[in-house]
Amino acid sequence: MAITLEDLIRIARGEDEADLVLKNARVVNVFSGDIHVTNVAIASTRIAGLGDYRGKVEIDLDGAYVCPGFIDGHVHIESSMLRVPEFARAVLPHGTTSVVIDPHEIANVLGFDGIRYMLESSKRNPFSVYVMVPSCVPATDMETSGARILPSDLALLLKENWVQGVGEMMNYPGVLFREPSVMAKVRAAAGKRIDGHAPGLSGRDLMAYIAAGVGSDHECTRVEEAKEKLRMGMYIMIREGSTARNLRDLLPLVTPATARRCMFVTDDRHPLELLEEGHLDSIIRTAIASGLDPIIAIQMATLNPAEYFGLLDRGGIRPGWRADLVVFDNFMDFRILKVLRGGQIVAERGRFVGSLSPHNPAIVRSSMNVHPPSISFAVPARGNRIRVIGLVPGQIVTQQLIMEPKTDGEFVVSDTERDVLKIAVVERHQATGNVGLGFVHGFGLKRGALASSVAHDSHNIILVGTSDDDM
Amino acid sequence: MAITLEDLIRIARGEDEADLVLKNARVVNVFSGDIHVTNVAIASTRIAGLGDYRGKVEIDLDGAYVCPGFIDGHVHIESSMLRVPEFARAVLPHGTTSVVIDPHEIANVLGFDGIRYMLESSKRNPFSVYVMVPSCVPATDMETSGARILPSDLALLLKENWVQGVGEMMNYPGVLFREPSVMAKVRAAAGKRIDGHAPGLSGRDLMAYIAAGVGSDHECTRVEEAKEKLRMGMYIMIREGSTARNLRDLLPLVTPATARRCMFVTDDRHPLELLEEGHLDSIIRTAIASGLDPIIAIQMATLNPAEYFGLLDRGGIRPGWRADLVVFDNFMDFRILKVLRGGQIVAERGRFVGSLSPHNPAIVRSSMNVHPPSISFAVPARGNRIRVIGLVPGQIVTQQLIMEPKTDGEFVVSDTERDVLKIAVVERHQATGNVGLGFVHGFGLKRGALASSVAHDSHNIILVGTSDDDM
Repeated sequence: MAITLEDLIRIARGEDEADLVLKNARVVNVFSGDIHVTNVAIASTRIAGLGDYRGKVEIDLDGAYVCPGFIDGHVHIESSMLRVPEFARAVLPHGTTSVVIDPHEIANVLGFDGIRYMLESSKRNPFSVYVMVPSCVPATDMETSGARILPSDLALLLKENWVQGVGEMMNYPGVLFREPSVMAKVRAAAGKRIDGHAPGLSGRDLMAYIAAGVGSDHECTRVEEAKEKLRMGMYIMIREGSTARNLRDLLPLVTPATARRCMFVTDDRHPLELLEEGHLDSIIRTAIASGLDPIIAIQMATLNPAEYFGLLDRGGIRPGWRADLVVFDNFMDFRILKVLRGGQIVAERGRFVGSLSPHNPAIVRSSMNVHPPSISFAVPARGNRIRVIGLVPGQIVTQQLIMEPKTDGEFVVSDTERDVLKIAVVERHQATGNVGLGFVHGFGLKRGALASSVAHDSHNIILVGTSDDDM
Repeated sequence: MAITLEDLIRIARGEDEADLVLKNARVVNVFSGDIHVTNVAIASTRIAGLGDYRGKVEIDLDGAYVCPGFIDGHVHIESSMLRVPEFARAVLPHGTTSVVIDPHEIANVLGFDGIRYMLESSKRNPFSVYVMVPSCVPATDMETSGARILPSDLALLLKENWVQGVGEMMNYPGVLFREPSVMAKVRAAAGKRIDGHAPGLSGRDLMAYIAAGVGSDHECTRVEEAKEKLRMGMYIMIREGSTARNLRDLLPLVTPATARRCMFVTDDRHPLELLEEGHLDSIIRTAIASGLDPIIAIQMATLNPAEYFGLLDRGGIRPGWRADLVVFDNFMDFRILKVLRGGQIVAERGRFVGSLSPHNPAIVRSSMNVHPPSISFAVPARGNRIRVIGLVPGQIVTQQLIMEPKTDGEFVVSDTERDVLKIAVVERHQATGNVGLGFVHGFGLKRGALASSVAHDSHNIILVGTSDDDM
């Protein structure tokens, strides 16, 4: 706390001037569920009080709305392709002042070092980063990931400040079948939160998963599924990411009776959506436009995630709590005019105006470890049928096709005419030379090759090419 | 946890039989705010799941309601005049399975030893006792208490299991004027809760009190007062004790929007009310009869206090949480049929059927330390006017009267004819011989004397007598 308790009390009582007073604010009160016009006094990083205050600096909000800074309860910053400070710069103008991250992706590449890097580079930024330690590295035992996070690693990380618990437990069969390493991870989380990830899990298997201590789920796609999970005590994270979008389907879940157990999260949002649509603000805007009570919508991005994660100094506009505040025009347009984080104005009308620490000492080693000479994409020509992955436009599911191979006599090669291209996964963590090969239809590439090292969850290199040489 | 994680999961999945299944239960779901008919499976001390289960023991509830065990968020067990195990026996048949106690009274007599005694005698009972460490011993600097709790004592006690924070901060001027010892106590509570006690505090002084970290208040008597405190982020404990009864006045505060920040507490309940009216069950019954939504009423005695105090294993019927359950007939009569605590039936139709630990090793020294020969009640007769405390029937406020003294020539004596009796406070902690003397009108005693060592907050002896000899 940058201010002493004594000074905070002095300013709250009006004995001393506040550092900043936001005058004529329409306060969205997430505790009482109503709106009242008042002044908000800020002392250093904290809210001093609401009411009649004088400040060294006074800003007349002229009736604009003020609500608490938004808290994203589940986000993989890696999916934005940005380093943590750049991510802060991207989301702060949208009102997000705290995030709970799960560095699952970087951990699958860099392991413990990757998590440490995220922890370190999360410090000294103009927003708050809480961490859920990835529970599933590798995601399954069938993956060739760059690292393995053991229960002992988890136990160590859980002692860190800012670490709130264990991240999405996607290995739910491991829970249900009581895999020893999964049980050890669950035990390590005692007293902290365990986030869930269990699409479609229901009935007694759901009971067992929750009984193990899993407290939330962000994978619901249907209201009935979400309703069952909420009834059994899970917090429902309504996700609206770049590819997985569940807001419209799940909104009917949210009623005045159930709302306190619901929150909005972004999970994976690509940089383009961050720029064009925004962050939690866009979810709130859409929810309100879809008919959700505006105050409930704001609670779902403020008080509710704070309660779930046990964050005791944020999520509402309350004396003594962090002065993380969002000023916006109205509930319809929901344009964010100002964002304050810890009493400092960090964004004005969509523009980041805070300061990023110029020097961030956190570094990571290069994660790319491939030995090209030892890699071959050759597929010997045997038989006259091959299995081909059939892409379905706009979907993540694929079809299985059986087609005739094109060969150069000795080897099967890509066939741009029929759009049957060679696809490879190249292990890139240990330079083992391991390559997985196949064919894909519907990709549409006519020459050259395309490769990506972003490939969930282990992030080996995926290549598609029109010839082995191009690949 | 009396059951292993693995066994709990096994039973939740239905691989093994549950220990107990409550069949055909109307579950009051505090998460979803609705009621559904299902079976509740219990494994050892825990809820295994809801749904289709077989059990070693099965009890058909035939459509009776089941809700979570009640949690009293603020109670002084000393006020019941009972030791902790006897208190458990008194309140369990009323559905109270967890209490958050503030041993303020015993601490004012026995200090650190008194708190230790309460902590020790709270163990091995058939209900759960959480402790808020008394913040104000003595209550004010004008009191002659039996002990003094220093910030360093507080810091030590706050490390104990079961200690959830610092109890009612009744010395709110000490907070507002930043008394060093009060500031030290507030700092010691960092990361835990601080309960409030600030009748009528409002405006900027309220802001300062909350800014110091005080999270609740149980002293509201008017809706406007409670509304202001709730808006500023305090949890409102609606108290319905023996003398202080605020339920009817404060019920209009509770709406679907504000309810999550409200809970019921008993504070001080005398043994007669415990027997005749009950405990939290009687408050819930009255609230429902007064028109409060029954599910909200039950949330205010279960999920809401659990959330405020950060109790992560109770407050709802959820797999993995404690099997603390209340079975009742209907919302109108609200007769409690069965109470389960940790999966064991501890009460049946108002009768305690659990077992109390036969031997409770916690002991305390005698707290009575008076040296009668050194005590004198003599009031020399000087002048012909005395100030007399005028009692007002049924009120705790008194009047100041000026009356003529009755003397035996040398000394002022009690006058039963005009009902002007001598009243004394005798210091009884250190045998100092200190005596405070006065007169009281309206007490009505005609012969002998009456004394009490229960006298809030320092519990010195108060006597009223018809003659010095009787006293």
